[in-house]
Amino acid sequence: MSKKGILIVISGPSGAGKGTICKALLERNEYYLSISATTRSPRKGEEDGINYYFLDRDEFKTKIEEDDFLEYAEVYGNLYGTPRSKVQDMLDSGKDVILEIDIQGALRVKDKVDDGVFIFILPPSMEELKQRIIKRGSETPESLMTRFKSAYQEINYVSKYNYAVVNDTVDKAVRKIESILIAEKCRVDRIKEKILDSKEGLIHEQLYD
Amino acid sequence: MSKKGILIVISGPSGAGKGTICKALLERNEYYLSISATTRSPRKGEEDGINYYFLDRDEFKTKIEEDDFLEYAEVYGNLYGTPRSKVQDMLDSGKDVILEIDIQGALRVKDKVDDGVFIFILPPSMEELKQRIIKRGSETPESLMTRFKSAYQEINYVSKYNYAVVNDTVDKAVRKIESILIAEKCRVDRIKEKILDSKEGLIHEQLYD
Repeated sequence: MSKKGILIVISGPSGAGKGTICKALLERNEYYLSISATTRSPRKGEEDGINYYFLDRDEFKTKIEEDDFLEYAEVYGNLYGTPRSKVQDMLDSGKDVILEIDIQGALRVKDKVDDGVFIFILPPSMEELKQRIIKRGSETPESLMTRFKSAYQEINYVSKYNYAVVNDTVDKAVRKIESILIAEKCRVDRIKEKILDSKEGLIHEQLYD
Repeated sequence: MSKKGILIVISGPSGAGKGTICKALLERNEYYLSISATTRSPRKGEEDGINYYFLDRDEFKTKIEEDDFLEYAEVYGNLYGTPRSKVQDMLDSGKDVILEIDIQGALRVKDKVDDGVFIFILPPSMEELKQRIIKRGSETPESLMTRFKSAYQEINYVSKYNYAVVNDTVDKAVRKIESILIAEKCRVDRIKEKILDSKEGLIHEQLYD
């Protein structure tokens, strides 16, 4: 029985540092990073199959009908989705898959992949979060307040996740996520059948020794 | 709000290597190793409070009545038990506690400490287990068969545990257990209140290492 990979969903509020963490995780490990499909046009420097799978709207809609997405959503007039079959192939081949996604997208994935590992990235403090949001160049005090309130509300979603990792430093956060993956692979409910199957060698052998 | 430690229960069939693993874990980490109480006499070289807490039968029975044990049992005419208050003090002070115990003892502890982390140590293979049991000097084929059957039955208990760690090498097993502990400290159901409280403006100090 070959070992299946684990789907690791990295999510959390804007400003928490999901992107930086995923980048570092991939530099240190042989994970596959899930690439989304989208109907938006490629930006300068983006390549099909590298940054996104760029599809036209009809192709995307066909895939929706064929249940080809773990989740999808429309954002500012463009469709975005996580392709199911590629992720499944990687998991079946034993590769762990990282999916970096917004909070709502993660919850949609959770409906379909109940043995996924859902990790919520937290900023080290609300003060730090505020600083990071400010640095992103919000022009008015009102839009800053909106963004901050939004992040604040988003943190309530932590209770829907399996793990919460504080992004105090990227290095520490990455090491925690790597530990989570090792621990998950030792969980009895993931590996129970394998253990009980491998028992069957003992008494049988003993009878014939 | 200070950080509580986690109770890590290391169990598994005879021959799996629990003792060796616990020794290595303690050499590498600041865990507290739970010391059992017993009514048996100290062997040469054993010290009270180091190898065991040596109690007389009356003292032990008093402690049973005062619910001072996480679990206890009678083995070959002597009583053995895990003292509750010492373990609790260590956990409350933020120390992680290792409890090395037989399979039945672990299940008794589980009834009382439902947020403990229960780790089942497995031999690397049934063949290896057989070799380790043989090496322990069983004189007759019948007693050997009894011991195998016993180990075989014991492995069924894995389903009552949270994690299963194969003792292929002590070093690998120890690293897995250390990862399990790091992961457990990131579990949302352990730290949810802290996160939601700290949204209110507090620093996430308590979520840090």
